[in-house]
Amino acid sequence: MSTTINASLRAQRVIQDLRELATLTSDEHGAQRVAFGPVWRQARDWYRAKIESLGLATERDSAGNVWVTLAGVKEESVLVGSHLDSVPNGGWLDGCLGVVVGLEALRHYVESGQKPPSTLRVVDWADEEGARFGRSLFGSSASGGSLQRSDVEHLQDRQGVRLVDALKENGLDLDGVLQAHDYLKKIPAKAYLELHIEQGPVLESMNKSTGVVLGTFGVERHKIFFSGQAAHSGSTPIPMRRDAFLAAAQTALEIREIGKRHSKPGANVVCTVGVVKVEPCIVTAVPGECEISLDQRALDADILAQMYAEAQQASHKAAQDNNVTVRWEKLWTIEPRPFDPTLLRLCEESVREVTGDAPRLPSGPLHDAAEMVPWMPTVMMFAYSANGLSHCKEEDTPGEHLEKTIRAFLTLVDKTVQHLGA
Amino acid sequence: MSTTINASLRAQRVIQDLRELATLTSDEHGAQRVAFGPVWRQARDWYRAKIESLGLATERDSAGNVWVTLAGVKEESVLVGSHLDSVPNGGWLDGCLGVVVGLEALRHYVESGQKPPSTLRVVDWADEEGARFGRSLFGSSASGGSLQRSDVEHLQDRQGVRLVDALKENGLDLDGVLQAHDYLKKIPAKAYLELHIEQGPVLESMNKSTGVVLGTFGVERHKIFFSGQAAHSGSTPIPMRRDAFLAAAQTALEIREIGKRHSKPGANVVCTVGVVKVEPCIVTAVPGECEISLDQRALDADILAQMYAEAQQASHKAAQDNNVTVRWEKLWTIEPRPFDPTLLRLCEESVREVTGDAPRLPSGPLHDAAEMVPWMPTVMMFAYSANGLSHCKEEDTPGEHLEKTIRAFLTLVDKTVQHLGA
Repeated sequence: MSTTINASLRAQRVIQDLRELATLTSDEHGAQRVAFGPVWRQARDWYRAKIESLGLATERDSAGNVWVTLAGVKEESVLVGSHLDSVPNGGWLDGCLGVVVGLEALRHYVESGQKPPSTLRVVDWADEEGARFGRSLFGSSASGGSLQRSDVEHLQDRQGVRLVDALKENGLDLDGVLQAHDYLKKIPAKAYLELHIEQGPVLESMNKSTGVVLGTFGVERHKIFFSGQAAHSGSTPIPMRRDAFLAAAQTALEIREIGKRHSKPGANVVCTVGVVKVEPCIVTAVPGECEISLDQRALDADILAQMYAEAQQASHKAAQDNNVTVRWEKLWTIEPRPFDPTLLRLCEESVREVTGDAPRLPSGPLHDAAEMVPWMPTVMMFAYSANGLSHCKEEDTPGEHLEKTIRAFLTLVDKTVQHLGA
Repeated sequence: MSTTINASLRAQRVIQDLRELATLTSDEHGAQRVAFGPVWRQARDWYRAKIESLGLATERDSAGNVWVTLAGVKEESVLVGSHLDSVPNGGWLDGCLGVVVGLEALRHYVESGQKPPSTLRVVDWADEEGARFGRSLFGSSASGGSLQRSDVEHLQDRQGVRLVDALKENGLDLDGVLQAHDYLKKIPAKAYLELHIEQGPVLESMNKSTGVVLGTFGVERHKIFFSGQAAHSGSTPIPMRRDAFLAAAQTALEIREIGKRHSKPGANVVCTVGVVKVEPCIVTAVPGECEISLDQRALDADILAQMYAEAQQASHKAAQDNNVTVRWEKLWTIEPRPFDPTLLRLCEESVREVTGDAPRLPSGPLHDAAEMVPWMPTVMMFAYSANGLSHCKEEDTPGEHLEKTIRAFLTLVDKTVQHLGA
């Protein structure tokens, strides 16, 4: 019984820390820890003080990621990572849950007075959200070595402030950022663990506190442009129209069918048309131009490729049916990043021990974990997300679910530290 | 043969006048005769000089409509009307064709030295387009008595100039405008004839110069708002989505089917979704809100009512299918305005005599003629519209088609003047 009570108290300490951070860095509209800004620096100051109170130190790599190392019996390291930065008007859990639970993992070992069997490191990635400059996974992709100079050197925020100047304000420079992989390479990292709120309705729909994440979806993200002929709504008979919007509407409905066809229980895929713009966008004109966006995600690379090909076919058929032309423009793609089988097993055991069940689901959103997959065994755990809401102040994991999830994740950290130390 | 040559020369004079007016009031972007502005006043000065050179006078009613009267043997009057005002960057025919052909009709009778059997009046309506203040058919609706103070007293242009001040600049005041029906009531008007470019592709598709217009479409114009739930494109499985855009897409496609179902040869109807706006309109979010516009037009009031009811049903079904809500907001409606059977017969004879055929079509766009329908027998004639284009500098009726159409319309004026004088 004492272990259970102890685990519960540990979870309560995490929740208390999260509440403290929320009070410090939120206003009436939600969390305001936007990366590279003053409130984010305040959050990191708070975090550093917590770490230092344990007798540990923070260290910053050249991309602005903050690392804490608790040496173990073995040098082989378990990394626990997430991000303190938030979107503007964000929630109290997105990102910081995964850092604060790392703080608790460190605290537990420090309090025990004993070296863990393997080394434990906690990393707070810089600018996961990309909320200000539009490049998400900034710090973790720099650390993972996938960040390219050409992706970011031109970036500006809405006020016209350049990313390079915002970096400077935070004591960083782009050359250094692009060297950050050197820091990671020196760590004998053997596992990466990340806890995050689901940001979707899947666990809620099953009434499960905690999920084992199978990997991050691969993504095909494109713009699709339909081009017909604007015409007077009163004088142009329907058979003579070249309506770009109706071609887009037909395509969008078919794209949903593609997603449905390729979804299987436990292996959902998603297809979304999120952007829709028509020209001239007036009541009395047949739309001559229509732009839509496509976002397709799947955990299986073959299925993703198939879905992408089918979406293209659907757009060409719709263009032909509506006597318009269609053009595609790639926005961004990433291949699926499935997680490590051994860590998945440890994660499943941990979730099952605490919650009695271990639902498995893919991660639709990307996470810093995706950047670690090429370099070390990686796994993630998800917390129940009330109403599936995230990136807003209503974001929440209700108390009971949150406590169980934190316990499950701390169990996973212990199991992984033991596993590497064995 | 001499009559034919004469008719052809008369048509050439109209085309020459139109070219003169275009040179005077267009720039490299097209016609700039926007109502209540300096170029429009210049066009009207040009027109007044032409009228005065015939020994006739112009008279302005209290809404700014310019009238010319050529007394006939009988007082019963044939009105020929259209508008000199254009949209910005407009075409060389939209509106002014119908005034300048009226000028030629007057010139012909003046040159003949004989009173026409009935009185001929030509009216240049003020601000048909509503391009600057957003209220089309301004002058003709004032004359027809349908203009309401509340429709216009608040109107401003994009620079913040109030309509009432623009009226003042033109020597008009709103009280006077709203009295303009008195002027019309004093005229023993027995027929209204209007020639206009089709502004659509129907005559072109049949390769016909000239069309008999059956009436102006009734219009149902609405906004439709679909409301679902914005959600993360990566984390929200398709079956759990409440996608407002897909509901709108389904509705828009069904609305086209409604239009197709109710179209018959020679009695086309149209249904258009011209405005499409989604929220939040980002690549990674399922649209939670979608607004579309609906514009339905038909010449038969029962069919229009049926189409409107079916569009509502379609939207409710789409809302239900997509687990979203739907709300309608009326923008504007007008009942169909069918033209007069006797004038339709005269119009058909005139077109057939000149072109060998008399295609009949409804008018999708509204015209000043619609405002005259409640007060007198009315008919319109359409000229071939190259590529169906209008409201742009590319607007054109190729020479041969234009000449035939002008001849047919002048024939109609003669026939109507004879008919009333008989």
